[in-house]
Parts: sequence; C-alpha cells; structure tokens
Amino acid sequence: MSQFTSEQIAEIEQLRGARASTIRPVSDGLEDILYQPIPVLDHGFIRVVDYMGNDDAVVQAARVSYGRGTKRVSEDRGLIHYLLRHWHTTPFEMAEIKLHVKLPIFVARQWIRHRMSSVNEYSARYSVLDREFYIPEPQHLAAQSASNRQGRGEILQGEEAAEVLDLLRRDAARSYDDYALMLNEGGADASRKGLARELARMNLSLNFYTQWYWKADLHNFMSFLRLRADPHAQYEIRAYADVLIDVLKRWVPLTHEAFLEHRFGAAQLSATALTAVRRMIAGEPIDQASSGLTKREWGELTAVLGLDESGASAK
Amino acid sequence: MSQFTSEQIAEIEQLRGARASTIRPVSDGLEDILYQPIPVLDHGFIRVVDYMGNDDAVVQAARVSYGRGTKRVSEDRGLIHYLLRHWHTTPFEMAEIKLHVKLPIFVARQWIRHRMSSVNEYSARYSVLDREFYIPEPQHLAAQSASNRQGRGEILQGEEAAEVLDLLRRDAARSYDDYALMLNEGGADASRKGLARELARMNLSLNFYTQWYWKADLHNFMSFLRLRADPHAQYEIRAYADVLIDVLKRWVPLTHEAFLEHRFGAAQLSATALTAVRRMIAGEPIDQASSGLTKREWGELTAVLGLDESGASAK
Amino acid sequence: MSQFTSEQIAEIEQLRGARASTIRPVSDGLEDILYQPIPVLDHGFIRVVDYMGNDDAVVQAARVSYGRGTKRVSEDRGLIHYLLRHWHTTPFEMAEIKLHVKLPIFVARQWIRHRMSSVNEYSARYSVLDREFYIPEPQHLAAQSASNRQGRGEILQGEEAAEVLDLLRRDAARSYDDYALMLNEGGADASRKGLARELARMNLSLNFYTQWYWKADLHNFMSFLRLRADPHAQYEIRAYADVLIDVLKRWVPLTHEAFLEHRFGAAQLSATALTAVRRMIAGEPIDQASSGLTKREWGELTAVLGLDESGASAK
Amino acid sequence: MSQFTSEQIAEIEQLRGARASTIRPVSDGLEDILYQPIPVLDHGFIRVVDYMGNDDAVVQAARVSYGRGTKRVSEDRGLIHYLLRHWHTTPFEMAEIKLHVKLPIFVARQWIRHRMSSVNEYSARYSVLDREFYIPEPQHLAAQSASNRQGRGEILQGEEAAEVLDLLRRDAARSYDDYALMLNEGGADASRKGLARELARMNLSLNFYTQWYWKADLHNFMSFLRLRADPHAQYEIRAYADVLIDVLKRWVPLTHEAFLEHRFGAAQLSATALTAVRRMIAGEPIDQASSGLTKREWGELTAVLGLDESGASAK
Repeated sequence: MSQFTSEQIAEIEQLRGARASTIRPVSDGLEDILYQPIPVLDHGFIRVVDYMGNDDAVVQAARVSYGRGTKRVSEDRGLIHYLLRHWHTTPFEMAEIKLHVKLPIFVARQWIRHRMSSVNEYSARYSVLDREFYIPEPQHLAAQSASNRQGRGEILQGEEAAEVLDLLRRDAARSYDDYALMLNEGGADASRKGLARELARMNLSLNFYTQWYWKADLHNFMSFLRLRADPHAQYEIRAYADVLIDVLKRWVPLTHEAFLEHRFGAAQLSATALTAVRRMIAGEPIDQASSGLTKREWGELTAVLGLDESGASAK
Repeated sequence: MSQFTSEQIAEIEQLRGARASTIRPVSDGLEDILYQPIPVLDHGFIRVVDYMGNDDAVVQAARVSYGRGTKRVSEDRGLIHYLLRHWHTTPFEMAEIKLHVKLPIFVARQWIRHRMSSVNEYSARYSVLDREFYIPEPQHLAAQSASNRQGRGEILQGEEAAEVLDLLRRDAARSYDDYALMLNEGGADASRKGLARELARMNLSLNFYTQWYWKADLHNFMSFLRLRADPHAQYEIRAYADVLIDVLKRWVPLTHEAFLEHRFGAAQLSATALTAVRRMIAGEPIDQASSGLTKREWGELTAVLGLDESGASAK
Repeated sequence: MSQFTSEQIAEIEQLRGARASTIRPVSDGLEDILYQPIPVLDHGFIRVVDYMGNDDAVVQAARVSYGRGTKRVSEDRGLIHYLLRHWHTTPFEMAEIKLHVKLPIFVARQWIRHRMSSVNEYSARYSVLDREFYIPEPQHLAAQSASNRQGRGEILQGEEAAEVLDLLRRDAARSYDDYALMLNEGGADASRKGLARELARMNLSLNFYTQWYWKADLHNFMSFLRLRADPHAQYEIRAYADVLIDVLKRWVPLTHEAFLEHRFGAAQLSATALTAVRRMIAGEPIDQASSGLTKREWGELTAVLGLDESGASAK
Repeated sequence: MSQFTSEQIAEIEQLRGARASTIRPVSDGLEDILYQPIPVLDHGFIRVVDYMGNDDAVVQAARVSYGRGTKRVSEDRGLIHYLLRHWHTTPFEMAEIKLHVKLPIFVARQWIRHRMSSVNEYSARYSVLDREFYIPEPQHLAAQSASNRQGRGEILQGEEAAEVLDLLRRDAARSYDDYALMLNEGGADASRKGLARELARMNLSLNFYTQWYWKADLHNFMSFLRLRADPHAQYEIRAYADVLIDVLKRWVPLTHEAFLEHRFGAAQLSATALTAVRRMIAGEPIDQASSGLTKREWGELTAVLGLDESGASAK
C-alpha cells in the first residue's frame, strides 16, 4: 500500500474500525475485505466500498417472500442454478456492489461501455491528476497477433522490448511534466497564469491512471465478468475482472458457483453446431466441410468439445 | 396487520431479531422500520427490505474519496444541495433502496412505467392470487373532472356513490369466485381438470392486489417521487408515494431536505414566463394577453407565484 | 379488418399513399407492409409504423464506415453472423423499429417487462376503452400442467370447456357494462355525475384490450423474440412474437437468418453438460446419475441433443 | 473537406445520389444534409447518417393514433409544447437520430457519460488511428478560472500562449511518432515484431481524434443538448452541441422551438427562490441575507431574473 498517503490509510482504518449493528443481510466474505485496496497492475486497485444483499437476496426476490427465502442451502442452490440457467435476470438485479477503482484511462474507456451501472469519476476538470501511468511488465509486452486483428501474439524480446518500455516511460514522463508546466499550479512561475485544468489534461496519454466509484447490480456485474474475464478480453482489463471473480465468490458463493457452471464455463452452440454434435454422438464421420460450419466456427466448436480440428478426441 | 398470516408475522419478527455487525454505512432511520409493513389503501403495504448507503454515500461518491466524505454536516448539506440544484445525478445513483410492495394492478401498471428500477412480481402464472381487491373509500370516489380530461372532480354522493361501490364490490367478488371456480385448485370438483393459472387470471379485474419486490437507486427513487407524489398524480399511486417521502426522510435526511427545496417545491419557468416575471418585478402592468403565454401557461405561472389570474398578488 | 372504423381505414390508406423520396436506407420488405394491421388473437393487431436502417446499418456501424458498409452480400452475411455469435450487441442497436400494437392487458403486463424499449400506451385515465376482450379459442383452453407449475397441460373438453368460455364471456361483458354504467359518458343518465375514468377502469378485467406504440432497437427486439417466441412463453404473447419473427425476416433478412442460427435454434450448454457431451462423443457410457447433472438438466440436455432420456439416440 | 480521402468523398456522394421511395415520415430539413460532414474544431465533424420520425412522430405517439397525428400545425405545436412543459418523455423517445462523429478522446470521454444512447467506436485494438490531434485556437486557450474550480478564466496571451501551443503540438507529435515506431506497421523495420495495437495506443494523448457512430432518441438527444450546449459545459464539447442544436432545428422545428422555450431558455426556481420572487413582485425589499438563499444561489437567481446582485432591476 506504498501508493497511499498516510492520511488515506488512516481514513481506511477509521472506516474499518467503525462497526455498527444492522438487521440487513450481511455477507461476511465481503465484510472481511471492505474498504481495503486490492492491488491490480502497477498502480491500480479495487476497493469494495459497499454492497447490498447476498445469495439470500436473490432467492427472496425470486419468491417475493416475507422472510429470508428458502429454509435450506440445497434449495437455495437449486433455485439459483435454475434462475441463471434459464436467464431469469431480475432476481440477480436485487443485489448491488459498489467499488472504488483506480485504473488506466484506456482500461476505463473499455469498462465504461457497460452502461447498466453507475459511475462517478475523479474530475480532471476540477482537480489535478497524479503522476502515475501504467507500464506493462515485460511478460505482457506482446506483439500484434498475426492471426487475430484484435489480439496479441508473441512476447517482445531483447532490444525491441527494452526500447518499447523506454519509449512508453519517456513519453508518459514528458507528457506529465509538460502538463504540470502548463498548469503552473500554485503559481510556481509568477509570470504565468496557468492553463485551465480542463485543457491541460489533454496532454496526458491514455496510460495515465484515473479513478472512480462504480456501482452495478449482481446481474450486470456478472455480464461484465463474462465479457471481461474472458480469455479474449485485453489483458489489462482482465486483470481487474480476475480480482472481481474472487470478490464475487466472497460475496455470493452460491451465485459464483452457478456463474462458473452456466456462464463462464458454458458454451453457446449454434443450430448448425448442435446438428454436428448430434452426428458426432451418433458416431457419424464429420469434418468441417460436411458440418456446414465455417472454418472459424468449426475451430471454435472443436475447441469447446476438446477435440482436435480433425474432429477426433484430443488426448 | 390483520392481513398477515401468523406465519408471515413470525418471519418478519425473525428478520427483525437477527442483528448482525457491519462496517458498512448504516441509516438508523431505516433500520428502525426495516421489514415492517406500512399500510397503504385498504389492503396494500410497503415494506423496506434492504438499502445501501445514506447521505454520506452521496458525498463520498461525489468526491471519489477514500474515507467518509466531508468532515462536517454543514459541508455535506451544502454539497448535496449543490448537486441536486445543478442536476448532478450520478452521486445519487450510489445509494439504493429495496421495497416489498402490495398494490392494486392498475397502480402497478403506472408504477412500472419507471423503467430505471428492478422488479420481481408475484407470478399469477405460477401461483394463485389472494381474494383481495381495492375499493375506494367514499371520500375518494370522485366524478370525472369537467376541466381536466385526466383528473377527478367532485366527490360522488348519495345513491350514485352507493351504487358505484356496490358495483365495484359485486363485480370483483364475482370475478374472483369465477376465477377460483375455473382453477378448481386441489381438484375441488373431481369432474374438472381446472383451467391453467396463466389463463384463469385474465378474469380478474384491475383492482385486484398484486405484490412485488422493487429496487431503485436514490436518483430514480426521487424521480419517481417527483412525478407520483405530485398533486396531478392519481390519488391511489400518490398514497404510496406519500409513504415513500417519509421513507426518504428517514433514510437520507439531508437529501430529503434538498429534494423538497429543489424538486418537489421548485418550479420550472419557461423562457417566456421568465420574461413575464421580470416585467412583474419591474412593476410593469402585465396580463395573460400581453405575456405571450397561453391561458393554461398563464394559469400555471400565476398559481406558482401565488397570484390570482389577473396577476395581482393573492391575499 | 372489420374491427376498424372506416375513418381509421381511410387514415391508413392515406398514409400508405403518401410516397416521398429519401436518401436514407430503405427496407423494401417493410415498406410493403407499413401501417397495415396484421391480425393477432381475436381482436389484436400489430402494425409496423416506422423503422430506421436495415442489414446495411448493422454492417456500417460495426465498421464505423463512411459509405454503405461492405461491397458484397457474402461479406455482410459473414460479419453479421460473426457479430451475433460473439455477442456484439452495439451494431444491432443501430437499427430501430416502431410498432402500433393492440393486445390484452395481461399480455401487455408481460410485454412491458422488457425495459429497453419505449412505450406510449392509450390512456384509460384520459379516454374510454373499447368493448373488446380476449376469449381463447377452444384449442388454446388448456388445463394447468401437472409437471410444470407455470405451464399448460391438456386441452379442456366438453362441458368444462364450454362453462369456462361462458364464464369468461359473461364476466367480461358484465365488467364492461358496469364500467360504462359508472362512467355515464355523455350524461346518459342526467341524475348521475359519472365516475372518473381513472377510477372506473379498475372494474375491467385483464383480458380487455389496450393499445400502444412500442419502439425498440434491433438488439432488444431480438432479445424480446428470443424469450417470447420460445415454446415456454405463454401462448398469447407467443402469438405476437410469431408475427414479429416474420417482420424481422422482412426487415433484415441476413440478421433474421443469423438470429435463427445463433439465438433461436441455438442452445447454451453448461460446464457440466459440455463434459457430458465430450464423454458421449468419446463413446463412453453415461446416464443422468453419472453425468453430474440434475434430472431436470439431464432432461433438457437430452432434448437439445435429440436423444431419449436414457442417452441413446432418438430415432 | 480536405481531411477526407477522395475515396471517402466518393462514398458520401454515392450515398447522397441513391434516392429511394418511402412511405415513412420524412424530414426534408435532414434529407438536405444527410451524410455530409459538418466541420467541428480543427479536425472533427458531425455527419447525420440516419433518422426516424419527425415532429409528427411525437404527436402520433402521444395520441396512439392510426394516422398522421393532428390535422393542423397549430394543434401539433400546442401539444408538443404541452408535452415538453409537463415532462412527458415517452412521445419524444419515438423519434431517433444517428450520427457519425469525429472528436478528440477527452471530448468522447464526456460524451459517453450519456448512457441512454448507442455507440460503435472505431477500435484502436483493431486498427491504427490517424495522426490527428486537437490544438485549441488561440482564443480558446484559457487560464484556470479563479472563481470556478471547473471553469476557464482569461485567455492566455503572448509568450505563455505560444509556449503552451508549442508544448501541446510537440508532445502530441512525439506521442504519435513513437506510437508508429512501436507498431512497426507493415514491418517497416524488419528486425522488429511490432507492438500489439491494443498496447501501443496507450501512448497517444487525450487530444487525439477518435470517431464513432452514435444514436439517441429525441428525448435523450435533448437531454444531451441541455447539458452540453450550456455555457457551463466545456467549450470543446459545446462546439459539437451547438452544431447539433442546428440539426435539431432542421429535423423537428416545432420540438426545437419548444426546447428553447421549456428547456434551454427556461430556469428551475427552488422553493426558497420562488418565495423570494413572490416578495419581489409584491414590491417588498429583499436582499441575499433576507432571502434565505446562499450567496451562490442568490447570484444565480438574480442572473436568471436579469437583476444586479443588489436585487435591483438591471438596466
């Protein structure tokens, strides 16, 4: 937590120490980590700052009940699996989570595309940003993928890697120094008025860190995780999503289990793919050409089924 | 609470008795009434079943802060007033409330037009509705307004009132009896199969009670209240909104105060109305014709300003 | 079209006759049916009253292009399938459709749960509803399902069917007659004031017809269709969804094709179900108990795969 | 249009030349400018690429009508003013507009906070951005405001202005050159693999231009304009909003007129401000202290009423 000022640490401690009594549902898993920053990337973090409801809330809402929901965990589990499997979304909208997140601007731009959420971002019109920017670790410094226009390929090595890191660092440092120079905060140079903050910020690059409060309900939280914890998501946002999958587990263990089963580890098979699978089960010979699937679709289907691309079972 | 079964009352008592410890922000005003049904109309109720955040949450989000927000109540009040006055909506999205509501279907149909919320309704496809329908009290049995096509006029009296109440009661009772007859639940009549619940329900009239879990954030909660606690709202939904204004006061007293000042007791003046007000303040003579406002607009403006329709100050 | 007044028919004719020139994208399939009511159930209809965009609009937006999109239909088809398969939703939000729908109130209550749309409903606070209510055709008069708490079973026969139809008709007729009596529109009975419309409507049952303008984008339109054209949806709303699948085909033929392939005819397999399928393909013996699936899940999986419940291929 | 390639100009010409016949409502004002880029800032533009509906659509939806709406323009105008004055939002949701916008990233970050809209942005994961960045014109190069923490003050002059422009230009140029160097597109340097596009983009500063397709309904379009064409909005986004107010006028002239009257030129007066205005009209002496308003609120009220801060009428 070296990135926090002693004042910030004191504020967090104070919040964690102020224990109150409530008759609301409580998630012990989340109470344990509330307010504490979980580090992500080189300068980022996620802090859970509030929540409403737990697995019970889902069950309770689905039943429009007067009391706590069902009596037994096994019934709750069955109902939660059923709801998620059959795309019942509204009971999962009945629980909420609120985060304080510090993240690079280019990650923030992906994140905010999830509209069904609430956001309060630190304002660089109003305040001055800190001198913190994201530099990838060497193992994440990848070349453009040759096969996938929006993916990464091999890791850069040697001189090229060194030069890229050097350029990223040098340009970000210069862009901040000139930002500070233009701002002339505190009238460092008495001969200058200082450029308006809302203008000066345009000189910062997209790897600078911003921060925000972000709130979503459990349904939309899972939609976010399904897309952003996916292997096809950009590594930098996936680093946040991976942390949030642990948060999900602490918060709503039964829903987390159902999420892994019915969303994260599940697959959608198209009408043509289903026909192909039926033929495979019946033991009929089948390959891409005879399946009616495109090469790409066939590749995706065999991957999901753990087969090699010829259609034979992978060892 | 005569409308609750002893089992329901026991469930509510159990919830109220299960006290836990939390380090989340707490609203003492809401904890006091959590889970308890507040009666509305003849068979309806509102129960607050959960909430997230309080006035602090608004301040905290607006500042994207590490700790509790500002240090002093007067600063919090000032900030909350400022935010509401300048239509900053996102900080108010950071607090949430969840209700269990029992309400007539025709009220539910108005309520659900507020899309920025979450709803789980008791399913009459799945379960059988209770024999409960709304009958207005005599003082709310109004004639069609002569001047306003979507409003009420004088209260019906004497024979007409008695006959209307009688018709409403008789038709609702019959529609329920025939609903029950068609359902043939429990195989009361062994010679019948019983009509599917999803079909039989169509025989019920719009004054039957349904119930749901409803969740909204503080911003959308206030939008709901501004429209539904308004004197132009239909009385029956206003009865619910009036209860919820008290809930707002218990939950977030500073926001409630700012809501009364900047939304509920405020008025929007059009460009032409502003010009008219400037002339009034300058002491110029002005009437509807010379104001450039339509009769209706002039009537609305003079009402807001406490003037009679001639433009003179009302006593 | 016997249900329309000659004035309404004239209005529709006039709209269809008023041809204009545009440089916007046009869907010839929709122009052919624009404004014309398509009958649904006994008194309902759907009219397409406006639209924006066609298959090109999806491609164009996905490419953020200056011109029409790609040059060849085969490329457009490939891109649209790709987008739908990979849950890219925003390009499908770029086309819109607007409908005028007449539908029973209990259907309207299901329909409106789709919040990502816009609705203007005919106001029974402001106007008087017509004397039109839904009565199921005999072949849709089903008993409660024994196995599925929210489904239908066998068709009612003989005396029970006749009595149900009779009750539905008689109660609806009476509820309307008393509605009209309480309203006393036009002062039919000079001794009465007439009950306010906003109150009188509560006497109508849920099978009365209402009408609205409804607008959704193509993405949300397909979400609606996926849920409401599903065999598990209640028959009465499915009747509307079935008509709308034809509308989809006329409007955006390539997207319609991709919708059938990747949504409507597709299936989601859970992590455990995928493991079971892998074992089936490898020729391993497997049954419900050894699959790790619940009975219900096993039943759903074997159905999707066209197997009987023992796991053997269905003939 | 020097910023467009000849290929892009040809594509636009082709779209404008492809005239079709439709029976949908048409907005002649928009047809005249469809597809043509309107320049904004130094390299940005707005192109209207599609629309649905016009003023008629609002009227038609409000009436849930079979035909075109009302018969006379004066009735339409009255209804549209009424709807906007009384915050009826759904009829204005029934018309849609779709834009292609090129804008600096820091403007895009403000713009996208309007969630009730659809966006497809040019992907810098997938493609390489152009070498185009925003440099303010000298008259917009303002100092930080002394009185308003999120506003601009005086215009920078002389050496300070020259240096700021120089820094902005130099840093942006370098950040692009190094972006290109790291990408090594086309294998310019055979000894390098080239950094993945999704990573390299983080080196670009926030004044680089991006582009997107953006779609909103008329209601949300006006909400956007009310906030972003406001004098308190940052100049750079206001430049876009100002163009869009002209687009609004071309598209829906009656709604545009009502927007100026009831939103843009209107003011919200708080409960306390209304009391103060009543006293002013009654000729009572009043100043900030006796008004119950804060200094800031009093300043806002006197400004809206065209008074000087003493409360006396401004000349």
